[in-house]
Amino acid sequence: MRHRLKDVAERAGVSVKTVSNVVNGHVHVRPDTRARVEEAIVELNYRPNLSARHLRKGRTGVIALAVPELDIPYFAELARHVVSAAAEHGWTVLIDQTGGRRDQERVLASGITDHLIDGLILSPLALTAADLAGLDGTPMVLLGERIEHCPADRVVIDNVAAAGEITSHLIQLGRRRIAAVGAQRTDEGASARLRLAGYRDALRAAGLGYDQTLVASASAWHRADGAAAVRGLLTSGVRPDAVFCFNDTLALGALRALHEAGLRVPEDVAVAGFDDIEDGRFATPTLSTVAPDKEQVARLAIQLLADRLGGDPTVPARELRAPYRLVFRESTRTR
Amino acid sequence: MRHRLKDVAERAGVSVKTVSNVVNGHVHVRPDTRARVEEAIVELNYRPNLSARHLRKGRTGVIALAVPELDIPYFAELARHVVSAAAEHGWTVLIDQTGGRRDQERVLASGITDHLIDGLILSPLALTAADLAGLDGTPMVLLGERIEHCPADRVVIDNVAAAGEITSHLIQLGRRRIAAVGAQRTDEGASARLRLAGYRDALRAAGLGYDQTLVASASAWHRADGAAAVRGLLTSGVRPDAVFCFNDTLALGALRALHEAGLRVPEDVAVAGFDDIEDGRFATPTLSTVAPDKEQVARLAIQLLADRLGGDPTVPARELRAPYRLVFRESTRTR
Repeated sequence: MRHRLKDVAERAGVSVKTVSNVVNGHVHVRPDTRARVEEAIVELNYRPNLSARHLRKGRTGVIALAVPELDIPYFAELARHVVSAAAEHGWTVLIDQTGGRRDQERVLASGITDHLIDGLILSPLALTAADLAGLDGTPMVLLGERIEHCPADRVVIDNVAAAGEITSHLIQLGRRRIAAVGAQRTDEGASARLRLAGYRDALRAAGLGYDQTLVASASAWHRADGAAAVRGLLTSGVRPDAVFCFNDTLALGALRALHEAGLRVPEDVAVAGFDDIEDGRFATPTLSTVAPDKEQVARLAIQLLADRLGGDPTVPARELRAPYRLVFRESTRTR
Repeated sequence: MRHRLKDVAERAGVSVKTVSNVVNGHVHVRPDTRARVEEAIVELNYRPNLSARHLRKGRTGVIALAVPELDIPYFAELARHVVSAAAEHGWTVLIDQTGGRRDQERVLASGITDHLIDGLILSPLALTAADLAGLDGTPMVLLGERIEHCPADRVVIDNVAAAGEITSHLIQLGRRRIAAVGAQRTDEGASARLRLAGYRDALRAAGLGYDQTLVASASAWHRADGAAAVRGLLTSGVRPDAVFCFNDTLALGALRALHEAGLRVPEDVAVAGFDDIEDGRFATPTLSTVAPDKEQVARLAIQLLADRLGGDPTVPARELRAPYRLVFRESTRTR
């Protein structure tokens, strides 16, 4: 026997309209009501004819979040927040990993998957404004400042200011030979360029010179890269009294390399990161960092997408800014 | 002007058949050829009529991976491997987060999303065999040993044996008061039950008694839970000389709590975890652990799904076992 909407409503003790709202992914259903309806759907093995309905409405109830790498904890934590914020709109989130490859990002941005998804939140590493010009694909929100003169909605944080503030904190500790770890070529990543700019701003504001030998590159930003970069600095005879790493995983690798070299943190070398991932709160020493408001980044991105899906697609692109704060822990503690 | 398959083939310098293979997600296309075709698709803004085609074939080219929590690094690392293995079949992976909630897992398993996906890989925390009985939904592969007498294909590792071996390693170091951190109620998680069983087996094999006061519960397995569990043990006057944590994040929290209590690892207390996440390789001290072959778990799961999608759906469910190995690092180093 094939059950109907009416049967589900009866079983769940709600109106047919409410069941319809749940099945259609509407927002204004109380979580306990939603749970009851979902229970009834499972118990009766009710199957709405979704494919047909979605083709009619032109909506799938699914959005995609595309990030370079899920095993960079920042993106995994961000993904959790996006899933939560999307759930409030009744959306399922498809998570995709681009590997930061430009071709992958272009295929996504060009809407090749738009038969599956209603909208896309993309954290690009390699995409350029030219790639986005003239696209009429899936509604899209970009994360980060990778692209100047961005033609799409996006959510950013002020990377230059944040990097400047955490560098100034190291200067205020009395450190003078502050290394920067994570520099990249322009085509590798915008975050690196912006954070390096903030670092230079802070040095300049304090009257400290910019010393290229204190800047270490890292084309990927994993722990191993941070460890290798610090080993490289030490091997070449550079003796920093502080290290600003462009993300926390680099910084956790740096902590390890400093430990192996017999240097104490923060006594010999203070260390700061960027992202405030959970690992840094439990490392020994605990890690000072810039904490972008990841929940807010996710909420703003979802809001932009909802506005775009619900409103006029020709409205000019908007840029929203999420806040950040500095978090001081043991790795920069004063003696 | 609307471009056709032929135009893409011309632009990419390949045959129409090859373009069709790329668009249809076939496996046997060389990566550089695939990239060239994707470039041409983007340049020409070619749009295959995918919805119609998929309805005809009854396939979407998308599979789902549902895990309890993406910000548990084990699941993020596993997700990366699943995305890679799926790409070899031309599949896109939709990643979903269940929060380990039984209702969420049931809705997924019941096939409510089967208009979107061809198959599901599910790592269940709360689902029971009863929930799966009589399901005729989306083809599904389960990860882990949560469900006894499982009616679906699944990939497991031998949790009892692995936990026993890492506990025996602690015993061989001469440790006698070995705490276990991460115990859970039966309805919370099967991994906890199996790893506790392995721990007890090893104690018994060594002629050591089982001491309930050395076992600490943790209903979640994050760093904070591991730190809280160890603080709890120490506060209640329990003085372990080793700690076996049921995953690495618990162990990283335990390392932190021991450090804060002024205890040295491994001199005063040896610590071992489970999962071999990247964090443990860079922690200070580096973390000894059980390393399940996550790449193999992913490959086997994808293979089971491919077999199920390509073959007879009534073939009895299969269980495949992925290997693991022990990794000894500083946290259990002998003096």
